[in-house]
Amino acid sequence: MASGGPRFPEDPGAGAAKPVSTATGTLYGVGMGPGDPDYLTVRAVRVLERAPVLVHFCKKGRRGNARTIADAVLAPDAARELPLAYPYTTELHPDHPDYVVALSAFYDDAAGRLADHLGAGRDVAILSEGDPFFYGSFMHLWRRLKDRFPVEVVPGVTGMSGCWTRAGTPITWGDDVLTVLPATLPAADLAARLAHTDAAVIMKLGRHLPKVRAALEEAGLLGRAVYVERGTMAGERVVALADKPDDAAPYFSMVLVPGEGRRP
Amino acid sequence: MASGGPRFPEDPGAGAAKPVSTATGTLYGVGMGPGDPDYLTVRAVRVLERAPVLVHFCKKGRRGNARTIADAVLAPDAARELPLAYPYTTELHPDHPDYVVALSAFYDDAAGRLADHLGAGRDVAILSEGDPFFYGSFMHLWRRLKDRFPVEVVPGVTGMSGCWTRAGTPITWGDDVLTVLPATLPAADLAARLAHTDAAVIMKLGRHLPKVRAALEEAGLLGRAVYVERGTMAGERVVALADKPDDAAPYFSMVLVPGEGRRP
Repeated sequence: MASGGPRFPEDPGAGAAKPVSTATGTLYGVGMGPGDPDYLTVRAVRVLERAPVLVHFCKKGRRGNARTIADAVLAPDAARELPLAYPYTTELHPDHPDYVVALSAFYDDAAGRLADHLGAGRDVAILSEGDPFFYGSFMHLWRRLKDRFPVEVVPGVTGMSGCWTRAGTPITWGDDVLTVLPATLPAADLAARLAHTDAAVIMKLGRHLPKVRAALEEAGLLGRAVYVERGTMAGERVVALADKPDDAAPYFSMVLVPGEGRRP
Repeated sequence: MASGGPRFPEDPGAGAAKPVSTATGTLYGVGMGPGDPDYLTVRAVRVLERAPVLVHFCKKGRRGNARTIADAVLAPDAARELPLAYPYTTELHPDHPDYVVALSAFYDDAAGRLADHLGAGRDVAILSEGDPFFYGSFMHLWRRLKDRFPVEVVPGVTGMSGCWTRAGTPITWGDDVLTVLPATLPAADLAARLAHTDAAVIMKLGRHLPKVRAALEEAGLLGRAVYVERGTMAGERVVALADKPDDAAPYFSMVLVPGEGRRP
């Protein structure tokens, strides 16, 4: 369904054989869940224990959060580890040409390194926060490799499920419509979408929290909004957004607007 | 956040002590995931193995799907089982007065039976398909019991995550907006919402598939829509909606419209 990257085109031509054989390794996208390792799935634990190559994304010089979640089930074994440090995280806007070029080259290079392992018959597990196919960096490697190697995606509990669980609030009742919104959207767009949904999850807050707060106010939803930081992780914080005195919002934070649908 | 049911009002008055003590049992809402028992979380397995009372919802005369998922981790033990048979499932519209009255009485009665166990110190686990706080029947018992007993919700992999995993397609890229829509919405509303989102999941298809198909066509999205039936379960079926020749859609089916956002 996704279009292939420049390095590994999806349609290699009618005459080209797909080099998938039993001798190649399998690419695993492993959903690591929202943070608490108890929310890893049985399948995720099994794959993590066995895969000879464990890949995780991280910020330069830091350990990635997905890898930290795995500490609960993995003995230290540096030989298995393959950290991939993003060239940028928040330094440039994702639409900036330099960002696009650098990220594209980063994913191409990473896919090449993974292809070497897979081609040599070694399974590769990419540790993905939440669910691999829901806003996951895994997807960018997957689309570069999926036509050359066997793939297994292990779905995970999403970060938003972890957050509404710890906020102690159901997100959707009855026939509620749920809208998942990146906070990066323009203010007017955010407000309009919030005004036309029963429930909402606003992700990628970062520096956008003042805008999100204003959009919620405009949509008449500020009173229902809940701010959750590091849901299910150490340092977890849950507070009514109206009661949050500042606009600081780390990467692992989101705003929930619980639905109020049918309750027999 | 939720309003209390008539049986156990949320605000028992300033003078009333909440009867929560270490002698009472804990109410667990256990996310059972999308169907494949390998997608149970570590925490869910632990709770299922230990809880002396295992509750599941079902259609009269049938075993509930959530209970079937648990077969992989539970030895047969009839003494622990408490099936709750809905008075109606699809026979009446959820807005029909008889439906509301019957369901309300059903949940009140069930909450009373669970309260007896909890009050006697027995933990009660309610097996919930997918994630308990995402369109789950669990929520109706939770809101009747949460102020009287300790509660732990175990989040689960949602049915929709299971479906997009098995469809082999990421659902959201970059800054895609995702809209989760119940197929029960009016046709015009469905079409309008589909026209203004990047990605969509349409749940509760049932007899509404012809309407959903028309709404997707009107929004210009029929070509991107994927139909998934029994995702991650026996009898799983994934097909482009445009290629599905009929409009039959069982309870465990949904339509996905994958996003096409940023892909560096």
